[in-house]
Amino acid sequence: MSNMDSVRVRVFSLNCWGIRYLSKYCPQRYAMIGEMLYKEQHDIVLLQEVWSEKDYLFLKKKLASCHPHSHYFRSGVIGSGLAIFSKHRIRDTFLYRYSLNGYPYMAHHGDWFGGKAVGMAILNLGSLTANVYVTHLHAEYSREKDSYLPHRVVQAWELQQFIRHTSAGADVVIVGGDLNMHPQDLGNRLLRAYTGLQDSYLETAKFDGCENGMTLIADNPFISKKELVPFEKGIRIDYILFKGSSKADVHCDSMSTTKGSVPNHPFPYSDHEALTAELRLEPHTPAETGSDRKLKNKDSTTGKLAELVDIVTEARTEVKVGLHCAERMRYTAARTGVMGLALLFLELVIAAVPYLALGAEQPFPRTSFYLLAVLCFAILLTTSMLYIFYTMELKSLQGAEDQMRLGIGSLQEKLKGFCLAQLHNPSGRPPEVQEPSAFEPEE
Amino acid sequence: MSNMDSVRVRVFSLNCWGIRYLSKYCPQRYAMIGEMLYKEQHDIVLLQEVWSEKDYLFLKKKLASCHPHSHYFRSGVIGSGLAIFSKHRIRDTFLYRYSLNGYPYMAHHGDWFGGKAVGMAILNLGSLTANVYVTHLHAEYSREKDSYLPHRVVQAWELQQFIRHTSAGADVVIVGGDLNMHPQDLGNRLLRAYTGLQDSYLETAKFDGCENGMTLIADNPFISKKELVPFEKGIRIDYILFKGSSKADVHCDSMSTTKGSVPNHPFPYSDHEALTAELRLEPHTPAETGSDRKLKNKDSTTGKLAELVDIVTEARTEVKVGLHCAERMRYTAARTGVMGLALLFLELVIAAVPYLALGAEQPFPRTSFYLLAVLCFAILLTTSMLYIFYTMELKSLQGAEDQMRLGIGSLQEKLKGFCLAQLHNPSGRPPEVQEPSAFEPEE
Repeated sequence: MSNMDSVRVRVFSLNCWGIRYLSKYCPQRYAMIGEMLYKEQHDIVLLQEVWSEKDYLFLKKKLASCHPHSHYFRSGVIGSGLAIFSKHRIRDTFLYRYSLNGYPYMAHHGDWFGGKAVGMAILNLGSLTANVYVTHLHAEYSREKDSYLPHRVVQAWELQQFIRHTSAGADVVIVGGDLNMHPQDLGNRLLRAYTGLQDSYLETAKFDGCENGMTLIADNPFISKKELVPFEKGIRIDYILFKGSSKADVHCDSMSTTKGSVPNHPFPYSDHEALTAELRLEPHTPAETGSDRKLKNKDSTTGKLAELVDIVTEARTEVKVGLHCAERMRYTAARTGVMGLALLFLELVIAAVPYLALGAEQPFPRTSFYLLAVLCFAILLTTSMLYIFYTMELKSLQGAEDQMRLGIGSLQEKLKGFCLAQLHNPSGRPPEVQEPSAFEPEE
Repeated sequence: MSNMDSVRVRVFSLNCWGIRYLSKYCPQRYAMIGEMLYKEQHDIVLLQEVWSEKDYLFLKKKLASCHPHSHYFRSGVIGSGLAIFSKHRIRDTFLYRYSLNGYPYMAHHGDWFGGKAVGMAILNLGSLTANVYVTHLHAEYSREKDSYLPHRVVQAWELQQFIRHTSAGADVVIVGGDLNMHPQDLGNRLLRAYTGLQDSYLETAKFDGCENGMTLIADNPFISKKELVPFEKGIRIDYILFKGSSKADVHCDSMSTTKGSVPNHPFPYSDHEALTAELRLEPHTPAETGSDRKLKNKDSTTGKLAELVDIVTEARTEVKVGLHCAERMRYTAARTGVMGLALLFLELVIAAVPYLALGAEQPFPRTSFYLLAVLCFAILLTTSMLYIFYTMELKSLQGAEDQMRLGIGSLQEKLKGFCLAQLHNPSGRPPEVQEPSAFEPEE
């Protein structure tokens, strides 16, 4: 590492609300977004809900000179909606599709068709390797009765897994996107506690933007105030998160959000507010993160581990609730299917009786016969598809639950090691703990 | 790293062919497998096609004392079929589901329902961190007319991405499973060249097993010889691959396969042969992998990079073929759907004419009318589902193609850096190349 100068990186994140023909003023807003991005020249631009590839290509053309590197992440039926534009060369990309993402029959919520995912791009910032992630989790349509909560918790679980497991080689980690979670929501705590990611809004030295860093605000003309209840003023659900490593520290020097309107324009960029964070990366030699630092942090590490165990346990409970729900739904689908089958069987028997008793007149009006048969087949088809779908949902939930159980076990094992070491050797590092990467903030 | 002694690890891999009620002698074979694993006490056991959780639980119980740590990877409708048993504590697990995996309507091939995936488990082997992967790719049903080739190439692409991006923190990488690819098949070359993984059959000091390391052999009574044509004796499609790091070298001391029969038993463990590799891990301090090694390997690195560019280009061509196919299929689905719609419309018009011309007699026999309407609706439903499915397939193929293009660009950039450096500074390491992790064998 020859270059030890600090590197300044401006990161931008926006949920573009880009549903062609459905989102209001879509082309005009993309023109505004393109104009603004061209003027602002951020280092890294993370966009969500760019549902149409044409809009991505429009931005790509517009930003060709200032952001020559870009990637559009594809998945699902419509796409993932995720895009990244960068001043710096994108060396590699990778996409992880969440295993759960709502229900296809909830077409009015549309999330299933979007194929929600997390996209990763690896790029060089000065002498440092940065892993940049952009994601968009399942929306919350009702805070009181959030039937998608288990799905979102599993998405947050998979997000932290993906970031943790893919960022071991990174000097800097940057995550941006619409998490659809409030700052203290379970999934958000899970993500931050497991990965050690820091929230730029909480860490920034300087802030300019909406009250409490809100990104979905009542003052935005595209927002219906009814949807925000009980949070009259708005909520904070979009984030830029970051993390350093043994090779670099990351600081957030300033952060800003848009405030529901754009000067000289009749409407804002989107229904979400845009986020900009100015990060300062300070490369250092690994030696600087010596035992001094580690010792200082040992007590807080133990505390953090214990907290993490609690959070994962809470997440596991939530996933179990989802499991019960999915089991019940699958049972209902199976029962309805069996009823459809019974009805079909009954109909055939009734129709067959006069046929067998040769010459007897058919008691069934032909039209009703056909209609009933069609109904039975429709029931059978629908319920078998639902059965398959719920089975897949169950497998994913069970998988997440298994992994969480294993995760809790590993964390507890580690905690035990730390506590024992502190008892026997209060000034040194526990020799029996050889699992640094399971909990990265400590590294 | 205090312990510098070498570590011996015995790795086992078997495709168990565990389709309950369909695979022959399933319970008996699981009993045999459990017995053998209990006796052999491998360090790591990687199983594929354990389709039923009951069978996994049977093995878990049987192996509780010798393999206290295990994980069953769930995905798709039936499951991923992947399981891992370990003597060593499993610290963490992660599952990646391949974005493409055959077609749901090819139910007789069944791959789609299996939810093919790659599972990862992180464990400690002595002082070393090992990332262990188990996977099973889409089957090849016909070598001449392999319509699943693009799917398998994309799976191999995603497999190498997953391994490469998640193993940066690992000291040792071990991969086992049924790749459904011959040693020189495109996907296999892609996987090995990009990740630097070594094939234990090719690297082993000692081998005992079937000719040419074959794992699907004509001598196995469960194999129909017709399926193997034109490879009368058999093929090699199951593998144990491995890779060291700057912290450890890995050597394969011996390797063996079963030979189509089991002494004292009337039939073998499975239709595939089982693989066992004895690996020796030699931990060393990173200093030992100094500039000497790197210099020695520079020429071969340039050659390998050039070869890798060729392989990725070949893979990209294959994905493009798949793209054209999927586009054609989607077009056919759309056209059929439009025809169904037109037919429905025509029928309604014919039915409506006498209705509008009041009193005129209905020319349509009622039964045919209903049957035709049902047919039209069935066509519409089927074609729209197919359209959605092919759209998803297209997105995945396009996504892989994009990533491959980007990958080729990065590799070429790197190759250029190497060549320039060799021209100007034939004895040193190129200073302008700062992208070591994009191509790991060189590290």
